[in-house]
Amino acid sequence: MPRIDFWYEFASTYSYITAMRIANVAAEEGVVVRWRPFLLGPIFKELGWNDSPFNIYPAKGRYMWHDFARVCDEEGLPLQLPPVRFPQNGVKAARLALAGEADGWTAAFTRAVFTANYAEQRDISDDGTLRDILSGIDVDPDAAFEAANAPANKEALFAQVDEAKARGIFGAPSFTVGDELFWGNDRLEAALRWAKG
Amino acid sequence: MPRIDFWYEFASTYSYITAMRIANVAAEEGVVVRWRPFLLGPIFKELGWNDSPFNIYPAKGRYMWHDFARVCDEEGLPLQLPPVRFPQNGVKAARLALAGEADGWTAAFTRAVFTANYAEQRDISDDGTLRDILSGIDVDPDAAFEAANAPANKEALFAQVDEAKARGIFGAPSFTVGDELFWGNDRLEAALRWAKG
Repeated sequence: MPRIDFWYEFASTYSYITAMRIANVAAEEGVVVRWRPFLLGPIFKELGWNDSPFNIYPAKGRYMWHDFARVCDEEGLPLQLPPVRFPQNGVKAARLALAGEADGWTAAFTRAVFTANYAEQRDISDDGTLRDILSGIDVDPDAAFEAANAPANKEALFAQVDEAKARGIFGAPSFTVGDELFWGNDRLEAALRWAKG
Repeated sequence: MPRIDFWYEFASTYSYITAMRIANVAAEEGVVVRWRPFLLGPIFKELGWNDSPFNIYPAKGRYMWHDFARVCDEEGLPLQLPPVRFPQNGVKAARLALAGEADGWTAAFTRAVFTANYAEQRDISDDGTLRDILSGIDVDPDAAFEAANAPANKEALFAQVDEAKARGIFGAPSFTVGDELFWGNDRLEAALRWAKG
């Protein structure tokens, strides 16, 4: 079965939209999705950005927030902007999402974290928020945090970021099909077509 | 009839794709297009960029060139990269395109300039190239250059850039429907849907 890798960052606005729709769209096309949480911070640093480009370039930021709301509306997705400064810190959530791959709860956890961030105005860097989310998808929070904080799992997240860089990824969401890279929620359909050959 | 404004810069890669497809797509949707040539240079300068962001940020640039070729291929558009350093200087072409509005040849001229740039490897800042293009669409080159270089027309191009800035435009192609802004060739269809209400 054809496969697509979905690279996302928990702080990323458009990754929320993709996270909420990719499972259905890919299933309709008969394409398997591998969920690849990563971090944009280290990649942005190499580009000389110590903050989100949406904060550094106000015109881009203003457009993005307006467009983001417009696309959420088109997709029927709830949107309540987060109470904390954008972008939220998604490191803990990314470690948990990666740890969840072994037991198969990465997708459900990812959707719940994005919903907490963009629809429920919760602080996704807060342990309590993350524990609630894990309980809500029937995952034991203690076991999940232990797996997430294991040195091997932290290393695996660094490796995931390194792989993203090596693949030329510079934003989120991104999609890869073999070595072929697609950037942006708008290009999900093109990536799925590519996966199907 | 609903109307969409199409904002483009002659140096912009994705503006080529939009320029070649917008007339057909908009006609099918029953939407009138107003062609709005402008310049990205002055807008990028305000963002602190003295060059295209695709040159400043290599990962973005590498992705863009690959993606640009892929989308041209999907759209059945010829692509031969220009012989001169990207981005080409499109100031003269923008003045001519703006001058052409009065006589209705802006769209035909714009398509021919983009084709010269991205499919015929020609230098679009060269007077000879531009005169050939004008002749090719049955426009008198002498009269067109005279109109393009008139102080009022040069001023009109500055005003066009100022209007783009005031509308929050930071890249090309962009589309406006009233005060609603859409950025990117990928969003043409969304802009047309918006125009139709």
